[in-house]
Amino acid sequence: MTTLDDLPTPCLVLDLGILKRNLARMAAAVARHPGLVLRPHMKTAKSLAVADLAAPGKGPITVSTVAEARYFAGGGFRDQIYAVCITPAKLDAIAALNAQGCDVKVITDDIDVAAAIAAHPGPLRALVEVDCGEGRGGVAPDSYLLTAIAGRLGARCAGIMTHAGHSYAERSTAGMEAVADAEHRGAVLAADRLRAAGLAVEVVSLGSSPTALYGRDMSGITDIRAGVYMFGDLFQAQIGTHGMDDIAVTVLTAVTGRKPDRNAVLVDAGAIALSKDRSTEKAPKDYGFGLVLDLDGKPAFGEAIVARTHQEHGEVRGEAPLPFDRLPVGALARIAPNHTCLTVAAHDRYHVVNGGRDVVAVWDRVNGW
Amino acid sequence: MTTLDDLPTPCLVLDLGILKRNLARMAAAVARHPGLVLRPHMKTAKSLAVADLAAPGKGPITVSTVAEARYFAGGGFRDQIYAVCITPAKLDAIAALNAQGCDVKVITDDIDVAAAIAAHPGPLRALVEVDCGEGRGGVAPDSYLLTAIAGRLGARCAGIMTHAGHSYAERSTAGMEAVADAEHRGAVLAADRLRAAGLAVEVVSLGSSPTALYGRDMSGITDIRAGVYMFGDLFQAQIGTHGMDDIAVTVLTAVTGRKPDRNAVLVDAGAIALSKDRSTEKAPKDYGFGLVLDLDGKPAFGEAIVARTHQEHGEVRGEAPLPFDRLPVGALARIAPNHTCLTVAAHDRYHVVNGGRDVVAVWDRVNGW
Repeated sequence: MTTLDDLPTPCLVLDLGILKRNLARMAAAVARHPGLVLRPHMKTAKSLAVADLAAPGKGPITVSTVAEARYFAGGGFRDQIYAVCITPAKLDAIAALNAQGCDVKVITDDIDVAAAIAAHPGPLRALVEVDCGEGRGGVAPDSYLLTAIAGRLGARCAGIMTHAGHSYAERSTAGMEAVADAEHRGAVLAADRLRAAGLAVEVVSLGSSPTALYGRDMSGITDIRAGVYMFGDLFQAQIGTHGMDDIAVTVLTAVTGRKPDRNAVLVDAGAIALSKDRSTEKAPKDYGFGLVLDLDGKPAFGEAIVARTHQEHGEVRGEAPLPFDRLPVGALARIAPNHTCLTVAAHDRYHVVNGGRDVVAVWDRVNGW
Repeated sequence: MTTLDDLPTPCLVLDLGILKRNLARMAAAVARHPGLVLRPHMKTAKSLAVADLAAPGKGPITVSTVAEARYFAGGGFRDQIYAVCITPAKLDAIAALNAQGCDVKVITDDIDVAAAIAAHPGPLRALVEVDCGEGRGGVAPDSYLLTAIAGRLGARCAGIMTHAGHSYAERSTAGMEAVADAEHRGAVLAADRLRAAGLAVEVVSLGSSPTALYGRDMSGITDIRAGVYMFGDLFQAQIGTHGMDDIAVTVLTAVTGRKPDRNAVLVDAGAIALSKDRSTEKAPKDYGFGLVLDLDGKPAFGEAIVARTHQEHGEVRGEAPLPFDRLPVGALARIAPNHTCLTVAAHDRYHVVNGGRDVVAVWDRVNGW
């Protein structure tokens, strides 16, 4: 049996028990709302093996790239929402999947793209993206553009979708509930306006991990999208949607140098292996580029963090003196990431453990576009 | 002929003419010092095709991962320095390459690792890493540890190496010259001390792109390592080692949404495609997550920058009003990166152009570890 001690570093470790606990928690949150379907966003995990657990029975999923759409279609996940506004050049690839029996719904907030979708010779369906307060993509639910875009899609309009990404700026359950309420109101208003305009509204989709967990009213919503809840990270723990014990993915790393004069060790997880994401910079606790855990994934070394990164160097520093006697070059540690979506993106596979150090499986990922 | 208009976005575009100009400039800088060998650091490009231009004749190179060592060895580059301190677990992989005829030299600054290298059954040679002021890895050139580590390596000691990474903190030629002087003094002192201790010193290696360009005295140095000079980036341009016209790699991206109410467009190059590196944050000019260029790689849109990123969304904002009539969804632009090493790491290939829009070649990269 391969164990963590045998793995080349740096690499990803995925704890199956924690993953399953996170999935069960979200499933329970969604089950509060009878009839609501969880449509997991696979942009974080990008793994068929994870999708089979998160969306059992090849259930509906969400994707963020053409590469993901193809990969998951190849694995039997036919019902997808590709939840980044589509460009005309990408329509052929999606239509090709649909021509093979998939139902990959694209999204748009642009009237010219809607016309291109309507005119495309291949099978396509689209949702109009609605902005419920995030201020990124989408049209306002009360905008004339909403019905104009949907009208241009015509029979290819499958409904609406919205994403309350601003929920991540909240720091309390009450704040997230309020964002979820606004997301719900916006989605329902948009759907009602499309129906009033005589358009079919099969899908009314919303979501973000915080609003999926804390949303109170899901009446009129058909499916809910969330992704980062599967793995969690330090930022999620800081905003209260995850416990520190619920971080399923860590980066296995080895000590490459000891620097007792500055109470630091260097490790082989640097800026590529961890990403340069600094999500926790403005959170209550700043974890630098990640929190150092021991080989069993437990807090170690007095909350030492990766304070500095270069391409292939991470510099671990502690407030308390580091135990250099237990940190020879080659000693292994695990780094909990700031933002799991970006950290895992540098790696092509997960080494799966189940609470211990034995590697019980290796799961692939689809990167790129 | 494939052109930039045909490529799936986001993806990397590499301008061959700019690359060759950057290579020629560095070659000329190194040629100021008779006998000095340029040992290009392939950690940025990670591409055999680029290595064939940067180190003609399968010349000596530098690498930063075991994956690179294997990939470049497979392409005929036998003389390598693996310039990140080695861990004992990685020695088998390097010895296996050397057993096949390579000369991949590892580095260390640790006496226990030196003992492991000396005791390893396979063919290995090592350099001692010297810290000439960077404050990352290495031992001080006047430290007793230097000769102790080299002595432990014994016949497997091939010399010393140092890296003046702190040169990137300088903002003037004079400042970079001063760092280069200190790097040179440290390297020569360390080499002299090893010789005085009766050890062979075949390699005296130093380098960083700034000190390679501006170093005045290279007496006693055998080779010089640099990498980012090949591609350049906005940070290099800010510190004066590169011109803005010398950035060889850009990210091709497509507009995914128009937001005239906030003078922004969304593009499909987000946090993964660009990286979250914010190198220019503390430079004289902050380019956010990258500078927007037109399809020909020329400045466009009044110095619009990628001001905000999400995983697959970049938000372009301009100080001047954006020309929305020329930016329909699907319109293409190129983004010059803050820190090219990290941006290219998310991609698996380069689409090579030669000043125009025709794609004259596709070159692969080796990612991972």
